[in-house]
Amino acid sequence: MKRKLIVQKYGGSSVAHSERIKRVAQRVIATKHQGADVVVVVSALGDTTDELLQLASQVSQSPSERELDMLMATGEQVSVALLAMAIHAFGEDAVSFTGAQVGILTDGTHTKARLVKINTHRIVEELHKGRIVIVAGFQGVNLNQDITTLGRGGSDLTAVALAKSLAADVCEIFTDVEGVYTADPRLVPQARKLDAISYDEMLELASLGAQVMQARSIFVAKRFQIPIHVRSSFSAREGTMITHSVGAMEDIVVSGVSLQKDEAKVTIRDVPDKPGMAAQIFRELASHGLNVDMIVQNVSREGSTDLSFTVVKTDLVATLRVTRQVSHRIGTGEVTTDEGVAKVSIVGIGMRSHSGVAARMFEAMARERINIEMISTSEIKISCLIRKQHAERAVRTLHQAFGLGKRR
Amino acid sequence: MKRKLIVQKYGGSSVAHSERIKRVAQRVIATKHQGADVVVVVSALGDTTDELLQLASQVSQSPSERELDMLMATGEQVSVALLAMAIHAFGEDAVSFTGAQVGILTDGTHTKARLVKINTHRIVEELHKGRIVIVAGFQGVNLNQDITTLGRGGSDLTAVALAKSLAADVCEIFTDVEGVYTADPRLVPQARKLDAISYDEMLELASLGAQVMQARSIFVAKRFQIPIHVRSSFSAREGTMITHSVGAMEDIVVSGVSLQKDEAKVTIRDVPDKPGMAAQIFRELASHGLNVDMIVQNVSREGSTDLSFTVVKTDLVATLRVTRQVSHRIGTGEVTTDEGVAKVSIVGIGMRSHSGVAARMFEAMARERINIEMISTSEIKISCLIRKQHAERAVRTLHQAFGLGKRR
Repeated sequence: MKRKLIVQKYGGSSVAHSERIKRVAQRVIATKHQGADVVVVVSALGDTTDELLQLASQVSQSPSERELDMLMATGEQVSVALLAMAIHAFGEDAVSFTGAQVGILTDGTHTKARLVKINTHRIVEELHKGRIVIVAGFQGVNLNQDITTLGRGGSDLTAVALAKSLAADVCEIFTDVEGVYTADPRLVPQARKLDAISYDEMLELASLGAQVMQARSIFVAKRFQIPIHVRSSFSAREGTMITHSVGAMEDIVVSGVSLQKDEAKVTIRDVPDKPGMAAQIFRELASHGLNVDMIVQNVSREGSTDLSFTVVKTDLVATLRVTRQVSHRIGTGEVTTDEGVAKVSIVGIGMRSHSGVAARMFEAMARERINIEMISTSEIKISCLIRKQHAERAVRTLHQAFGLGKRR
Repeated sequence: MKRKLIVQKYGGSSVAHSERIKRVAQRVIATKHQGADVVVVVSALGDTTDELLQLASQVSQSPSERELDMLMATGEQVSVALLAMAIHAFGEDAVSFTGAQVGILTDGTHTKARLVKINTHRIVEELHKGRIVIVAGFQGVNLNQDITTLGRGGSDLTAVALAKSLAADVCEIFTDVEGVYTADPRLVPQARKLDAISYDEMLELASLGAQVMQARSIFVAKRFQIPIHVRSSFSAREGTMITHSVGAMEDIVVSGVSLQKDEAKVTIRDVPDKPGMAAQIFRELASHGLNVDMIVQNVSREGSTDLSFTVVKTDLVATLRVTRQVSHRIGTGEVTTDEGVAKVSIVGIGMRSHSGVAARMFEAMARERINIEMISTSEIKISCLIRKQHAERAVRTLHQAFGLGKRR
């Protein structure tokens, strides 16, 4: 029988200091002793990334991206070496690698490189020697041998991509929570850990700000059908499996409720009601790399209309600058912003085939007298923009309205 | 006319924090603006090496050497990235490289690898683009693409080897002193900075504990006749040139006095006066990697003799263990140690052709009533082991006896 191959990924908080590194070492060894080959992907130790960024800011106000990658990549290199040492200290054989050493080839986009391919030759060779292989997450190398990094969620991506390239049986993502929940347990005491969730639902949850995994890695996992197991590095309990189809035989309509408070609303008054006005505005924003989330345009009133959209708050200043330029050019009314908003969403693959989900959502909000300012929907998600002070109450209300606290 | 090429090496104290890194950046840029291509070799920031070693000790009592190299190499990688950013911030173009990226190939001896060769292709290409090239010192890569480090003084070695491979005009070693002195200025106020010194003399001084450069790099510089300029990173003044033949037309007998306090004396009483006894002892010590410095054997007395030798104090415990085993086997008297000693030496290429140098040294010591316990000589050096409390006085006496304070 073919030996099982497991890729495990441990984030920065799992290796924040030596005691935690030793605990990860024991966990990795235990997995191997259960009869599997193990490839481990590790992030930088706890606060290392911030410390390195601070060093950079002390010598340069706008450090070059190539050199930032050179600098940041040391964080994971420290982690893999220390984890290998810790595993050795427990008597098991292990060997660490940088992204470059195991041939994680990316394009040349420094600080947010895209994976091109992984040459697994060296990893396979070391696994055959019976060794645990430890790979630095988040980093790769371009065709020119320059070090690149993969951007946010890069270590997850390294793990998922390695699982794909090595045809691993599962990719385990270790985090500081027990798995994926029907809602944030800090907001909703009745929130329940899901045993399984589909890639599509997880993608929506990730883009709605669930901290568990970045959308990018889930997208790759979905594309290559890599089973992902999100679980806690602090307990041995099973977490949440992310796989292709979940509950096909069941009647799960809504899987979870999520809350996002990092967006702001921008409103442009009195946009001339002529074809191409909205297009001009959003093309200009896009050309500045500014991503718009929800968009609402009111019905026309005396030849002009109000246009509102949301952006993440960190993009608000740039967005305002660009928006005011365009609005001046095309002759609109004033541009206003509103940071007192929150976005509450429900996600569920079952929505595809169930009507009335939106209605049930809006009714629940109405019963609580929570006004909905904007709505956006996808096949498996409905989001509502509301006043920020109602956010937590809205999440609890929706969690209950869809019966998410009950075992199914 | 061919453009000048200068290799500069900055040690850890020169890049200890952001302000110093910026100063190094300005210095490098100034060198380039004077019309030279510049390749810079940098060590790890200030205390980084100690901090990384401490991390390692927290996860393992005896970390694997391969993983130690993986860990330690991050120190220089941080330095090169920061220096490149600092240079960019001043408006010049620069690019940083790890040892692996510029093809610094070594053998497989982790933590003290030997250089095999350097592939200068990438460096030359970047210099042609008009860029300042920054290379991580101390590190390389073996044939297997595993990261290696070069051991003590490794960054100097990187600089000298790059200067050789690139056929540089000069290799500048920046340190926290102004150059090579006739004696330690902290001990001898009259000590004078030498404008020039020969490789051979510098080799002796280095092996006698002068902190300026490791013997290893000087050996390579001598072999390939690379001119080295030792100078201060805190001043623009000329330092000391290390070259092949110095003062051939002059009559410099003794160039400097040095003091070493890191050795201990080991004495084996009543060694049987038979052939092969000393050989057994020193072969056994060598096989344990223990290097003996001075050796003295007294004249035979009733069929046995006393044998004394010195070792660096950090090797004393291991030396005692090995020595006691051998002495037990061959049947000697007791083994004693003495840490209250110091070694004072005079170095000078002129000794080769001048008689009476040793006599002058011993006379000077006698006038000061300093007892000489052991003597060892080479072609260009004489060392005396004395009581530690007389060390500083001995250095001052010899400095004066050989007229080293006077301009020549």
